Amino acid sequence: MSKYCFGIDVGGTSIKCALFLTDGTIEEKWEIPTRTEDQGINILPDIAAGILKKMKEKGIPKEETAGVGIGLPGPIEENGEIACAVNLHWGRKNVEKELEELVGMPVKAGNDANVAALGEMWKGGGKGAKNLIMATLGTGVGGGIIVNEKIITGAHGAGGEIGHAVINPKEERACNCGNKGCLEQYASATGIASLARKALETSGKDSVLRQKDSVTAKDVFDAYKEQDSLAADIVEEFAEYLGRALAVFACVADPDVIVLGGGVSKAGQVLVDCVEACYRKYAFSACKDTQIKLATLGNDAGICGAAKLILSK
Amino acid sequence: MSKYCFGIDVGGTSIKCALFLTDGTIEEKWEIPTRTEDQGINILPDIAAGILKKMKEKGIPKEETAGVGIGLPGPIEENGEIACAVNLHWGRKNVEKELEELVGMPVKAGNDANVAALGEMWKGGGKGAKNLIMATLGTGVGGGIIVNEKIITGAHGAGGEIGHAVINPKEERACNCGNKGCLEQYASATGIASLARKALETSGKDSVLRQKDSVTAKDVFDAYKEQDSLAADIVEEFAEYLGRALAVFACVADPDVIVLGGGVSKAGQVLVDCVEACYRKYAFSACKDTQIKLATLGNDAGICGAAKLILSK
Repeated sequence: MSKYCFGIDVGGTSIKCALFLTDGTIEEKWEIPTRTEDQGINILPDIAAGILKKMKEKGIPKEETAGVGIGLPGPIEENGEIACAVNLHWGRKNVEKELEELVGMPVKAGNDANVAALGEMWKGGGKGAKNLIMATLGTGVGGGIIVNEKIITGAHGAGGEIGHAVINPKEERACNCGNKGCLEQYASATGIASLARKALETSGKDSVLRQKDSVTAKDVFDAYKEQDSLAADIVEEFAEYLGRALAVFACVADPDVIVLGGGVSKAGQVLVDCVEACYRKYAFSACKDTQIKLATLGNDAGICGAAKLILSK
Repeated sequence: MSKYCFGIDVGGTSIKCALFLTDGTIEEKWEIPTRTEDQGINILPDIAAGILKKMKEKGIPKEETAGVGIGLPGPIEENGEIACAVNLHWGRKNVEKELEELVGMPVKAGNDANVAALGEMWKGGGKGAKNLIMATLGTGVGGGIIVNEKIITGAHGAGGEIGHAVINPKEERACNCGNKGCLEQYASATGIASLARKALETSGKDSVLRQKDSVTAKDVFDAYKEQDSLAADIVEEFAEYLGRALAVFACVADPDVIVLGGGVSKAGQVLVDCVEACYRKYAFSACKDTQIKLATLGNDAGICGAAKLILSK
């Protein structure tokens, strides 16, 4: 019976690592830099060295360890291969196989946004749910769909890529992905800032936002909390797009709960309230009461989800 | 080792029944009327009687039978209960438990649209795929999402209810579900007829469709195949809505293949071609090459999916 496992969350600048007890308790956390030079050839060996050192330090034998779960910034296919990871300077790579050889234990890899969703299901905002949609509202919009406690990876590792659902076919600006009118263009921090710029240009309303050189998503929500009318218009536009998109996704996956995470979710309960109102308006009758909740794990969602990934392997 | 199983597809007027070999061969098919009187109290006993009679007739012992799969017109929950089935005059009912008691074998129930998707995955247009989205374009638009060969049932039995995804928030007419702008309002046979009525009113173009008292979806596709320009406008509008919606669904589930079924799919390959062109325009890069195929099982999709349902239980 395993007592331990490791959860690893690989980002473009640093790698978060944690030793877990199998009940979900975080025993220890550490962080190492992501060495992206030489096509990121050191990344997996660095992770493996950290894990093996920790096991030696703590006197943990391999037999008591379930293995290593790892979240990565790229599409992971069913066989454990990553197709590419631009931020790590990686091309195609069989992460599970390579890391397994380095640590001598089972490894399970997943896409970072999907893994964060699994973490929130296990220990966070979606605790107790088996079916969950998570939308991570950061610089972009990531997502994860969990069905019966399992990540939907998809045929091309693109399961849960909800940020690139086209929700406004009339959009003229291009998204980073090349399409036009993606959810990410309205519901990410960058998207909200862009909605704000447009509103400041086209609206005649006075607003505290006019005093700023450059308006951020945080500025918009701060002003919204102070009853700024222009900020309310911007938040309403954002919530219309996101609420309607979530209602569409719910027609596909019909989750128990929808979790909102990422930097934008720091706005708190007002975010849930405005998105929920729009969600209810567009949701199919059977899904109208689906709960919308804030993510609670913050930066730990990735390591927690990674640990859960290997525990449910 | 089981040699046989039964697949049952319950409709509002008749019930399709089939005896299968476990390799998927249909050994025998029969049909019985759906007796909806007295709150449909006879429906399950009628099905059970037919199954037991067939086993007796063929000399099949229960030990050689995997059980009974059954597709029903309503939302089925994880525990085998149906929340309601308006067409059968049923309220809440534990179909699996009741039918198990009547036949003395395992029963697995599923929503009919979901079950049809499973059937197309097993033996039809999606054969060989593990992940599939099926859109059934009939009087309404039904759907089924298969992930790793399993139906996504959802928290409220509403998984795959893609017909009620709101894809046009500016719509003023209400859908049967009460919302406005659902996919069903544009991509069902009824929806296409309604797009045609609007086009005939607002366009100045000449068209063979103007000779009809009332234009059907079939009329539109027939005229489209004859290069009728107004019919082409209608088909393009339909394909824009459906193609974009499928691209959004693919961002959630990332299927291997998308299967189009239902009466509208009788239009054939031209349907696939026009929907595919719009799908590709809106799909996320990783999913752009996802195949779109016609359903091939026709009215047998339900019984086949039902049989697969019990075989994968």
